[in-house]
Amino acid sequence: MTNTYKRLVLASRPRGQVTPDNFRLEEVPVPEIADGQLLVRNHYLSLDPYMRMRMEDVKSYAAPQAIGETMIGGTVGEVVASKHPKFKVGDKVQGMFGWSEMGVSDGALLRKLDTTHVPLSAYLGAVGMPGMTAWYGLTQIMQPKPGETIVVSAASGAVGSVVGQLAKLRGCRAVGIAGGAEKCAYVVDELGFDACIDYKAGRLEADLAAATPNGIDAVFENVGGDVFDASLARMNPFGRIALCGMIAGYDGEPMPIKNSRVFLTMRLTMRGFIVSEHMDLWPQGLQELGGLVAAGKLRFRESVAQGLEAAPEAFIGMLKGKNFGKQLVKLI
Amino acid sequence: MTNTYKRLVLASRPRGQVTPDNFRLEEVPVPEIADGQLLVRNHYLSLDPYMRMRMEDVKSYAAPQAIGETMIGGTVGEVVASKHPKFKVGDKVQGMFGWSEMGVSDGALLRKLDTTHVPLSAYLGAVGMPGMTAWYGLTQIMQPKPGETIVVSAASGAVGSVVGQLAKLRGCRAVGIAGGAEKCAYVVDELGFDACIDYKAGRLEADLAAATPNGIDAVFENVGGDVFDASLARMNPFGRIALCGMIAGYDGEPMPIKNSRVFLTMRLTMRGFIVSEHMDLWPQGLQELGGLVAAGKLRFRESVAQGLEAAPEAFIGMLKGKNFGKQLVKLI
Repeated sequence: MTNTYKRLVLASRPRGQVTPDNFRLEEVPVPEIADGQLLVRNHYLSLDPYMRMRMEDVKSYAAPQAIGETMIGGTVGEVVASKHPKFKVGDKVQGMFGWSEMGVSDGALLRKLDTTHVPLSAYLGAVGMPGMTAWYGLTQIMQPKPGETIVVSAASGAVGSVVGQLAKLRGCRAVGIAGGAEKCAYVVDELGFDACIDYKAGRLEADLAAATPNGIDAVFENVGGDVFDASLARMNPFGRIALCGMIAGYDGEPMPIKNSRVFLTMRLTMRGFIVSEHMDLWPQGLQELGGLVAAGKLRFRESVAQGLEAAPEAFIGMLKGKNFGKQLVKLI
Repeated sequence: MTNTYKRLVLASRPRGQVTPDNFRLEEVPVPEIADGQLLVRNHYLSLDPYMRMRMEDVKSYAAPQAIGETMIGGTVGEVVASKHPKFKVGDKVQGMFGWSEMGVSDGALLRKLDTTHVPLSAYLGAVGMPGMTAWYGLTQIMQPKPGETIVVSAASGAVGSVVGQLAKLRGCRAVGIAGGAEKCAYVVDELGFDACIDYKAGRLEADLAAATPNGIDAVFENVGGDVFDASLARMNPFGRIALCGMIAGYDGEPMPIKNSRVFLTMRLTMRGFIVSEHMDLWPQGLQELGGLVAAGKLRFRESVAQGLEAAPEAFIGMLKGKNFGKQLVKLI
């Protein structure tokens, strides 16, 4: 083991689109651990859209990422040194060590992982925060009944792919929206959605109408903008909308909801949510998600960038939809 | 009693703003009533914003008002002839006889009224559909806790005035938004709101910020547009929005929600509703509202137009905010 490790800190806040020089690579000494602490070598870093919002200095659900501090992020890795009674060297753990090759913890907020039937990286995806985000939005907000039609945008992504598969398992018609024919083919052929609309094909409204002949009963929204307005136009009375993200507006573009009248005429309910505020439901959700992944009933796909230095470019690409499935960075 | 009565029918659908020639006055014979029927002489007609949406031929929660048919509307009046076992001449009743001096009913959907402590006209306002709209939105969607701040737009109106007074009775800080200094003075001095913002004064955002030093926990929205966006900008985490109307857009103007991101960052819940779909709660709500009016604890104001012929102009004025309090038409 070397005596140093690398991490990426926020160097400056983006003006519009994120650029590589918003980040700075640092190489720092591996710290000595004190009694009650443990040292983790991270294997994978998760890249997620929420990080873009943290880079802004605006009032939101979380304090902004501080300049000069390690970029926030979920990680999975292995304990390489421990003076903590509950963790031993070799334990696989999930934590929030950020864009960093290593991290020190006192054990709080660290979760031991069983990789017997579920691969380590899946704990950052379908059996981690993205999977729980899908599970929470579907079961707690959308509450679809068998036979209802649900629509999810960014359907090939880490969250959207789980939303649709869980909806299918509950007897719903699942329709995805994704960017490009390849992603749409994957959503239908491999994930088992009933249909997927390619929003880049230029026929969003017509294609969505054809794919939702009985209208839409519930939406899981990741994108916002025109994609969201198209779904709103197809909503049935008493429709439910889980608002998870508006990635189309994360660079500061105006993101108006134009079809606002539909909320009134169709008596819709919309709720924005942050899954980390509902930790009480994680055991229940993770049990279902882990069981489905272990049984091969919940499929997922990963885009893996190699090495911490590749993280900024992978992150910028993800914000533009260039990833295909869950975006990870392999750190070892 | 004359042998004829007057009614107003929809002559044409508005293109943009409603104009008087969208209506046509008809004088028709008073019908003979059959066994099981009764005849009502209407005393007051209620004019309400929802009627504007019914004039459009668009997909909504209700079928559009048919061309050539009597304009829809709530009425209160007196039974003048009866062959119905449960109604006798002289009974005061509330019904949906529309923009019409008289109406025939088989008793279904007709409600007998007790005017001992509550004036007849109040059953079209604070103790009728507008009051129930306020009660439902506040108690079922906004669910404010004592000490929380609620904001209601169109605060001097039939619905808004009740929202704020019910919130005050529940220990909340109630802030209104209304058009003009006179309405705002009424909202604060007579209705007892803590503050009222005059949106016509040109300082909407700054005035609302000053009146909501602890942010906004729940909104009752009647107006939409810039007024709604201003409230959204002040929302606290987990805020609730009862979406009742968007009167600013009823003539077909685009009505985007510009501050859409706040739904995500503040994890807001918004629900559009139509109070007539929740009849199960009317007995409970009307009991509270009737008791408060009878006890003088729920105040209201009426704008009364004289005679059915005055209804179109009064309706057009109401859509522009020219009324002050509940808009009625006195028919007798």
